[in-house]
Amino acid sequence: MTITPRTLKGFRDFLPAAMIPRERLIETARNVYRSYGFVPIDTPALEYEEILLGKGSEETDRQIYRFADQGGRRVAMRFDLTVPLARFVAQHIQQLGKPFKRYHIGPVWRGENTHRGRYREFYQCDFDTIGTQSIAADIEIVLVIHDLLRAIGVERFTIRINNRKVLNGLLSKLGLASASVPVLRALDKLTKTDRDRVAQEMMSAAGASAQQADQVLALADLNGDRDSVVSSLQEIVHGSEVGQQGVAELQQVLAGSLAAGVDSEHLQLDVSIARGLDYYTGTIVETFLDSLPEIGSICSGGRYDNLAELYTKEHLPGIGASLGLDRLLAALQELKLIDTVATTAAVFIPYFDASELNSYLKIASWVRQAGYGVEVYPEPKKLGQQLSYAADRGFQIALIAGRQELDNGKCQIKNLKTRHSLEVATGPNGAGIVQTVREILARD
Amino acid sequence: MTITPRTLKGFRDFLPAAMIPRERLIETARNVYRSYGFVPIDTPALEYEEILLGKGSEETDRQIYRFADQGGRRVAMRFDLTVPLARFVAQHIQQLGKPFKRYHIGPVWRGENTHRGRYREFYQCDFDTIGTQSIAADIEIVLVIHDLLRAIGVERFTIRINNRKVLNGLLSKLGLASASVPVLRALDKLTKTDRDRVAQEMMSAAGASAQQADQVLALADLNGDRDSVVSSLQEIVHGSEVGQQGVAELQQVLAGSLAAGVDSEHLQLDVSIARGLDYYTGTIVETFLDSLPEIGSICSGGRYDNLAELYTKEHLPGIGASLGLDRLLAALQELKLIDTVATTAAVFIPYFDASELNSYLKIASWVRQAGYGVEVYPEPKKLGQQLSYAADRGFQIALIAGRQELDNGKCQIKNLKTRHSLEVATGPNGAGIVQTVREILARD
Repeated sequence: MTITPRTLKGFRDFLPAAMIPRERLIETARNVYRSYGFVPIDTPALEYEEILLGKGSEETDRQIYRFADQGGRRVAMRFDLTVPLARFVAQHIQQLGKPFKRYHIGPVWRGENTHRGRYREFYQCDFDTIGTQSIAADIEIVLVIHDLLRAIGVERFTIRINNRKVLNGLLSKLGLASASVPVLRALDKLTKTDRDRVAQEMMSAAGASAQQADQVLALADLNGDRDSVVSSLQEIVHGSEVGQQGVAELQQVLAGSLAAGVDSEHLQLDVSIARGLDYYTGTIVETFLDSLPEIGSICSGGRYDNLAELYTKEHLPGIGASLGLDRLLAALQELKLIDTVATTAAVFIPYFDASELNSYLKIASWVRQAGYGVEVYPEPKKLGQQLSYAADRGFQIALIAGRQELDNGKCQIKNLKTRHSLEVATGPNGAGIVQTVREILARD
Repeated sequence: MTITPRTLKGFRDFLPAAMIPRERLIETARNVYRSYGFVPIDTPALEYEEILLGKGSEETDRQIYRFADQGGRRVAMRFDLTVPLARFVAQHIQQLGKPFKRYHIGPVWRGENTHRGRYREFYQCDFDTIGTQSIAADIEIVLVIHDLLRAIGVERFTIRINNRKVLNGLLSKLGLASASVPVLRALDKLTKTDRDRVAQEMMSAAGASAQQADQVLALADLNGDRDSVVSSLQEIVHGSEVGQQGVAELQQVLAGSLAAGVDSEHLQLDVSIARGLDYYTGTIVETFLDSLPEIGSICSGGRYDNLAELYTKEHLPGIGASLGLDRLLAALQELKLIDTVATTAAVFIPYFDASELNSYLKIASWVRQAGYGVEVYPEPKKLGQQLSYAADRGFQIALIAGRQELDNGKCQIKNLKTRHSLEVATGPNGAGIVQTVREILARD
């Protein structure tokens, strides 16, 4: 009796055609993070339950996979990479030193409702700088996001920048400082519902007056060039020290990003960003693809005051962001910015003559040594069948040689895209083949 | 009240100095697998319990982390990547086509006894070719292992090759075919105990005569050059069809590997390898570091008959191997083949003049665009403090510029290894700095 092969609801198998671009995107992220000196860490999938419980909302707690292990310990699977980071830095900060700049890429698990297209296992791809209040770290977050999107090949994107202190300043000027959570919760709905309802909610849930609600909502109206937005903000927060500091930080982040070569068109001050405001304490960033803004932010983050307060008395401020891998991959697919191939190698060698396997292995080895991936088909099937295997998977070149060609030191090179073939002399250690492969791959 | 930050027994945090070489090794493995056309897949950490239970030994079953999820389903965390592969190919083989060559790198979990230095969470790093009986796939396993070790920088290693059919042939000639499991179990102890005891066990546990035990143990005496070993084997299996096929396959694997450029010194016929013999059906490989043979095989695998028989009626033969990541990393450390650094970037820019942050960001961006990782220190602390941060982490170069130097278009470049400094002209878009950085990194 066979067992039905199936996966759990909300969990995914990644087939090669999906996994190849996924791996490439992760590699790109890793390379960009590294180019700023962020270093990798990893933490266990399982933690003591007490480390993870009660760190998010009640809903998060319900979603955590948790159980008793073989030794009777209450354990839980990590639901994000931030809580483990907090535990990690509290435990190791003496050894790590400050600033500590880490990236962490790995799976997390949440027993979520799958109706909204959510998955119960997904990757997070985070980078954070811990242990410094310096605005240099804030600027760097913008630079990393910028370089990452450029490295992926996205040309048109906007990094929206806000600063929690601006809103804090305004709210304290309006006497609404103690109602900031319900005010923010209402403000966050501005993208989904109309302004009147948001104002209504500010009044009913946060006890704001109509005039106060109006003054908060005025933030969302700030448009136009950055200099005029900055001037308006300066007026709005005038008299509030924290508000003025927020505006100054916004200016520094902008100026630093521009100095480091970020094109002005990629940067936007957007003081209406409210999501995450109740967690973040300073700079906040969100990133939108100009061609697909409706999918939401594909890389978000911000500054927080004290990462690890639950685990240590040491004060550890930080700033970080998280790349939304699944969302970005879906977008890249929609924008046709990723090729769908099911091979990691460019060159295919059919097993053409049943007695010549070792010749094919030798040719493959020469081409591989020149830096190109080569797959040798393992069975001497009909050539047509082997070539359609190669074409289906997206190989670019086939190297075809029968015994006669091999005896004469020749090889046929077929460009599988253009279907053009030519015969070349193999050359010493395959130099003739390698040269033609190099030319075709550089050109097509 | 703070929660004590701690990890579960058998689980590890990876700090940057441990994670950097780990990530590099995984990248190297991935690149070598890709260069042969192996493609990546991923499967969920959690599977239905029935998929995983009863696939290994009873001990394995006890080690599996399993529980009821929020929906009451019995779920289990994967304990290897082979059982999920079997489920995966059974489920998707129509879409994948054959041959299917995949690699899969990811964590697995086993609630093992940690006394023997075992971990409860560790990475597996597997590659397999499914759906072909061709010896080409067997040869390729050897080539992949060879290229992988060369890519890592290991010069002296031995790939030991065996074939289950040779032993099968001998056992059937001796009339011991039905006792192969206890015979193998005894033979496997040859590295740990003396020959007499192994013979004794073959007699007591497998019902072999003293003469039969002697004839099996004669396999372990086969030494000398490969041609003479092959001749002896041909005599030993003479008259057994399956035995002769085994010897022929061994010869083909050797000849194919040599044809593809593997140096003869890396290959050894070793028909006494018994580990895994009760699972594998043909070629078997193990890989030893010549300078550290005592740590055991760092990459092992072999051919199996029917991967997914529990999940599908389709017959799916295959061959694959698994890189022992933890073991290899420990060995590389012991052989001093990995640098211990705690940075992913080579170039460090101290925040020297408090008013010049944007200048440092600009220089960093120029150098980064030339392909070098650059970290800008986020706080304008004392230069000595910043430089010792850089030296501790293993940065190679510091770019130091005060306001005066910046005003004069100059920058000081300090080689942190040699402690030699020189002043260069920044040049347009930092070209002068980039050139010197390139020279130092190419040289030192």
